[in-house]
Amino acid sequence: MEPLLNKAEPLNDAGLRAIAHMPTGSLRTLISDTLCKSFADADFMRVAVFLAEKSYDEGGCPIGAVIVDNRTGWILGKGHNTLVQENHPYNHGETSAIRDAGRIDFSQTTLYTSLSPCDVCATLLYMRGFSRVVVGDVTNASGNEEWLRQKGLRVDTLEDSHGIELYARFRREKPEQDLEDWKGLSSVPKN
Amino acid sequence: MEPLLNKAEPLNDAGLRAIAHMPTGSLRTLISDTLCKSFADADFMRVAVFLAEKSYDEGGCPIGAVIVDNRTGWILGKGHNTLVQENHPYNHGETSAIRDAGRIDFSQTTLYTSLSPCDVCATLLYMRGFSRVVVGDVTNASGNEEWLRQKGLRVDTLEDSHGIELYARFRREKPEQDLEDWKGLSSVPKN
Repeated sequence: MEPLLNKAEPLNDAGLRAIAHMPTGSLRTLISDTLCKSFADADFMRVAVFLAEKSYDEGGCPIGAVIVDNRTGWILGKGHNTLVQENHPYNHGETSAIRDAGRIDFSQTTLYTSLSPCDVCATLLYMRGFSRVVVGDVTNASGNEEWLRQKGLRVDTLEDSHGIELYARFRREKPEQDLEDWKGLSSVPKN
Repeated sequence: MEPLLNKAEPLNDAGLRAIAHMPTGSLRTLISDTLCKSFADADFMRVAVFLAEKSYDEGGCPIGAVIVDNRTGWILGKGHNTLVQENHPYNHGETSAIRDAGRIDFSQTTLYTSLSPCDVCATLLYMRGFSRVVVGDVTNASGNEEWLRQKGLRVDTLEDSHGIELYARFRREKPEQDLEDWKGLSSVPKN
């Protein structure tokens, strides 16, 4: 099968956005193993940010995540927050990508998240044995990076300006939705 | 609408099992507000255990949970672990019931769980602002009860012998599935 994008083409945002939107099981229609292996951390992070953008466009919380096999460089799972889209009180970017990946051994994988993980997701990343987490935004939120390092995970920060701007815009536009997603509806002031 | 079960009938296991299996949005075909309000903690816990039994019968992990409105006594959400059924690396009994309840204020609700919550679920119960948690089995697992109390939640233990026996049987039969559900596939010894 010949994928749509080949190694010769420059990998631009249009390609990375298409990767974000393509179901994980169908990624081989878009990209080859070789192309995927050539991706840098910043490329995977941009895919996570385009998943966040998709969620924003749907009226949801703009947080996305991608899980990559450390050995093959292949994308094993990805997803975005679905608080609004699924009426789901806790399906964050990280959980969504983990659900998409299914019952695999996460100990040889890296999770790229567009926003610093919350307490629940940080605990989950540790309990599912991830070896590495790359965080794309410690400007709008942060705090669990050091805890994850103490638990033995490698944690890298690789800020993506597009993702940071998008999340800041969302928080200005929908501060209550942002708060509900983080701390639950009980934390949102009643009018 | 006249519900199937009325207040005059004794509430036996057959009735509680039917409640466990009935979709939450259709519970009014089975029970009235008045009947639901007459339920004791042990009744709600038995519903959680029958959700665990349903999951066991499907080949899954036998852990169930029910969320009840403190004021009305009405069941707002319920569910069971779906590791096997949905190929889902983290949808525990608690998460499943929270997903079923949707975007509500959990601060005036009680969650009944058939098994002591894991670290991820304990963090989630705190972050979603639950006021009370009732734990039906601290024999097969335990540990986060005190942490939840320190975080301000009321935590009660109300062991259900049927649930404890069921979980012990599951662990004997499928120790690797039990371990995967708790600590991820990376913790399961390779053969």
